[in-house]
Amino acid sequence: MIKLEEKIKKEGILLEKNILKVDNFLNHKLDIKFLKEIGEEFKKRFMYEKIDKIVTIEASGIAIASLASEFFGYVPVVFAKKTESKNLDKELYISKVHSYTKNKTYDIMISKKYILENENILILDDFLANGEAVMGLIDLINMANANVVGVGIVIEKSFQKGSKRIKEKGIKLESLAKIKSLDGKIEFEK
Amino acid sequence: MIKLEEKIKKEGILLEKNILKVDNFLNHKLDIKFLKEIGEEFKKRFMYEKIDKIVTIEASGIAIASLASEFFGYVPVVFAKKTESKNLDKELYISKVHSYTKNKTYDIMISKKYILENENILILDDFLANGEAVMGLIDLINMANANVVGVGIVIEKSFQKGSKRIKEKGIKLESLAKIKSLDGKIEFEK
Repeated sequence: MIKLEEKIKKEGILLEKNILKVDNFLNHKLDIKFLKEIGEEFKKRFMYEKIDKIVTIEASGIAIASLASEFFGYVPVVFAKKTESKNLDKELYISKVHSYTKNKTYDIMISKKYILENENILILDDFLANGEAVMGLIDLINMANANVVGVGIVIEKSFQKGSKRIKEKGIKLESLAKIKSLDGKIEFEK
Repeated sequence: MIKLEEKIKKEGILLEKNILKVDNFLNHKLDIKFLKEIGEEFKKRFMYEKIDKIVTIEASGIAIASLASEFFGYVPVVFAKKTESKNLDKELYISKVHSYTKNKTYDIMISKKYILENENILILDDFLANGEAVMGLIDLINMANANVVGVGIVIEKSFQKGSKRIKEKGIKLESLAKIKSLDGKIEFEK
């Protein structure tokens, strides 16, 4: 998605250690009009798949999934939670995820009643690096005996192992921007 | 908003200790079409105010704010973060919030560059109980010398002190459903 690459070049900030900050439109301040275009693009990429539900993970995935839902006929969005609230159902699917950014391992969870057997599920998320969050979501969906129809990612760091892990599972992956290098400057895959 | 009251009655689950769970459409699984109607209703309630930006707090507020933005001419949404990420800007406004649900006090923060002096800001959030999260957001916005134009809440627990605290500051509060009692059953204010 050329427009996304241009936005990343213009508004993204490259920090040390391969970290790209896109807080200006994706992770802290949200450019809602642009995120709707992102949602529409996901629909194009998964036009021929039957999608019953979109699953994502708090926090940044929520805006992306919520704004994409309209283009998939307003399917429900379920977001996995990272911390257990008193209010959360006790009947949970739980998986473990390691965050390299925050340097810790945490549980992610979804109430059992919100993923149903045989449902066709699209996973959406903001970033794909080592694939920890997405693999955790796939794990939760597998526990429910539902189908992962595909994974849609806004920004993929292709030089890390996430895309390989997803494709090895035979799951369709669509990343709207693929970054092949963050070594001094942002380089996209052709 | 009658439709919201009906949805709460139908889908809400009343737990012990005045806790209302609306995970089925607002806090875990998201009913996107309905949340868009919520967004449109907020626009009606703040029709005459100039709004430059919507501010909310992760995680549940993100969907509400993102889906409301369209009705305010796609103003940007900024969500306050609850934990410090390595990637977050070091130039932060920080305030403290106590969560009675999770029984802990935590920092909330917004990068200084995402709230500008004199901006007119609408705060949106899912629940208002004791008002801790909203007071924290007002605090952050005051630090930036921006204006809190109003506070929009999906579900207010009127029997707790949040609404009083906001109104005492002279800030316009619009709650789409006002619950006066959760003692055994859900009772709305007339």
